[in-house]
Amino acid sequence: MIENPNFAGVIAPVLTPFGEDGEPDPARFVEHAEWLLDEGGCTGLAPFGTTSEANSLGNDERMDMLEDLVEAGVDPAVLMPGTGTCSLADTVTLTQHAVDIGCAGVLMLPPFYYKAPSDDGLFQYFSEVIDEVDDDRLRVYLYHIPPVSQVGFSLDLIDRLRKEFPDIVVGLKDSSGDWSNMKAILERFPDFELFPGSELFLLDGLRAGAVGTISATANINGAMMRRLYDDWSGANADEIQGEISAIRKALQAYPMIPVLKAIVAHYRNDEPWAVLRAPNMALDPAAGRRAVKELADQYGFTLDLAATV
Amino acid sequence: MIENPNFAGVIAPVLTPFGEDGEPDPARFVEHAEWLLDEGGCTGLAPFGTTSEANSLGNDERMDMLEDLVEAGVDPAVLMPGTGTCSLADTVTLTQHAVDIGCAGVLMLPPFYYKAPSDDGLFQYFSEVIDEVDDDRLRVYLYHIPPVSQVGFSLDLIDRLRKEFPDIVVGLKDSSGDWSNMKAILERFPDFELFPGSELFLLDGLRAGAVGTISATANINGAMMRRLYDDWSGANADEIQGEISAIRKALQAYPMIPVLKAIVAHYRNDEPWAVLRAPNMALDPAAGRRAVKELADQYGFTLDLAATV
Repeated sequence: MIENPNFAGVIAPVLTPFGEDGEPDPARFVEHAEWLLDEGGCTGLAPFGTTSEANSLGNDERMDMLEDLVEAGVDPAVLMPGTGTCSLADTVTLTQHAVDIGCAGVLMLPPFYYKAPSDDGLFQYFSEVIDEVDDDRLRVYLYHIPPVSQVGFSLDLIDRLRKEFPDIVVGLKDSSGDWSNMKAILERFPDFELFPGSELFLLDGLRAGAVGTISATANINGAMMRRLYDDWSGANADEIQGEISAIRKALQAYPMIPVLKAIVAHYRNDEPWAVLRAPNMALDPAAGRRAVKELADQYGFTLDLAATV
Repeated sequence: MIENPNFAGVIAPVLTPFGEDGEPDPARFVEHAEWLLDEGGCTGLAPFGTTSEANSLGNDERMDMLEDLVEAGVDPAVLMPGTGTCSLADTVTLTQHAVDIGCAGVLMLPPFYYKAPSDDGLFQYFSEVIDEVDDDRLRVYLYHIPPVSQVGFSLDLIDRLRKEFPDIVVGLKDSSGDWSNMKAILERFPDFELFPGSELFLLDGLRAGAVGTISATANINGAMMRRLYDDWSGANADEIQGEISAIRKALQAYPMIPVLKAIVAHYRNDEPWAVLRAPNMALDPAAGRRAVKELADQYGFTLDLAATV
């Protein structure tokens, strides 16, 4: 494993709660973020990931929410907000804001509207973003999620960015779902902070040099991932991974963001938590109840959230 | 054809020129827009379409450029700017700004980050945008371009939006490239302003009830399209369509935005026009010269831009 990584462990792309007016709800957001760090097993937070419905949020909404977190006392040293948009200009704005507020890193999608961009074009794009932000404190984690963004990072592109910006482009979240891609990255870039985008690859990843996971389900099951992360060379590691994977697979039977929100809403006894912003839609309530029951009955899964409400 | 459509004819998604600092260049932009209306055959302009590299522009850049056009004297009654982003909040901001400035319509992409949204989710999204803008002057043209956005409009979704907002959701640009889809829309919604997204379908479209075309290549070949539009029931219509289609197909052998910019740069004798914003890249100069020569030699294509430089 890398010595002294900038980020490591279990990182949650924080769910974004919406209030009855349809706007992001800062009180619920901060409460959930603090719970993730204090009780939920997370070592860090990646607000404004795919799971956060970040791409349904406006730029101003994102910046306001990030300020809410820091003003509430969340240490920006554990924050890796998503700042990648389709547009160079907006990406620079969000990235500079995150750096200025002290965030230890940013998670950056490639520009994803125009399809099949060349590696030259993507290299140019990231170079311009980094040059325009022009800040030694900047640490960029590339966000590779081709199933959603369609646009991804080739190994050669990673190599060019690593060579040009060795102190800035320091890691990658791999949400390809393709272990062979993660393995190839780990082998080719041993000093790179790789986070599998799903805890299905947590133990294999750690054994091969990954530094943790940034995973949607860390919003509810981070504590179990953290047990594995903290003792991944222990005798029970494979067993814990098996339990983690079983819960992940049960969740994957549902649309991911809606089921996570339904579960949080259930255990917080707080219906508005189940709401998503359009075009994403809340889970049918019956399906939400079924998911909660299935996880409780089959895996003993529960969340002790009552005390924090 | 529809009586008194809100928009009709030949509409160009205006190319966005960039200055040497990488920022959108207002002087070149306004000059090109005015040329399109005065000499280039266009009846209207759709700044911030796909061809405009709109999704590489920041929200503030778009709003500034739109103000530049109107302040330069372009009549907002001929403007249909693109205002659709991934995000409800930013789409509302851009749309309200366009309405406030007097634009007669907006061209609205569906939210395109989250893939395979439900029709319910998209209906909810457009309803919320329209409700939040809350302005009787708003006229929305749906932007159907599944080859790029991946997310599109089903006929049933169009039907729901038409029924809920009959005075607001008044048209659609169909860049599917699928004539059977355009035909189905024209048959099912006879009072809807349909614009094929390519002039390959201009004559067939007009004969079937479409009101014109919104096409990338109207940036350079709008005058020929306009000749057809103005006399589409004339004896030479099929012949003109044949010439138009031949040029379109020749252009399609190149990446579209780069070749259009290379051609404008050539005839304006103004190299910076050839530049694109990353991740899109300029055409290799040799390919640009080849395209210019091919169009001139084979189709007698030329642009008389010298006088306006």
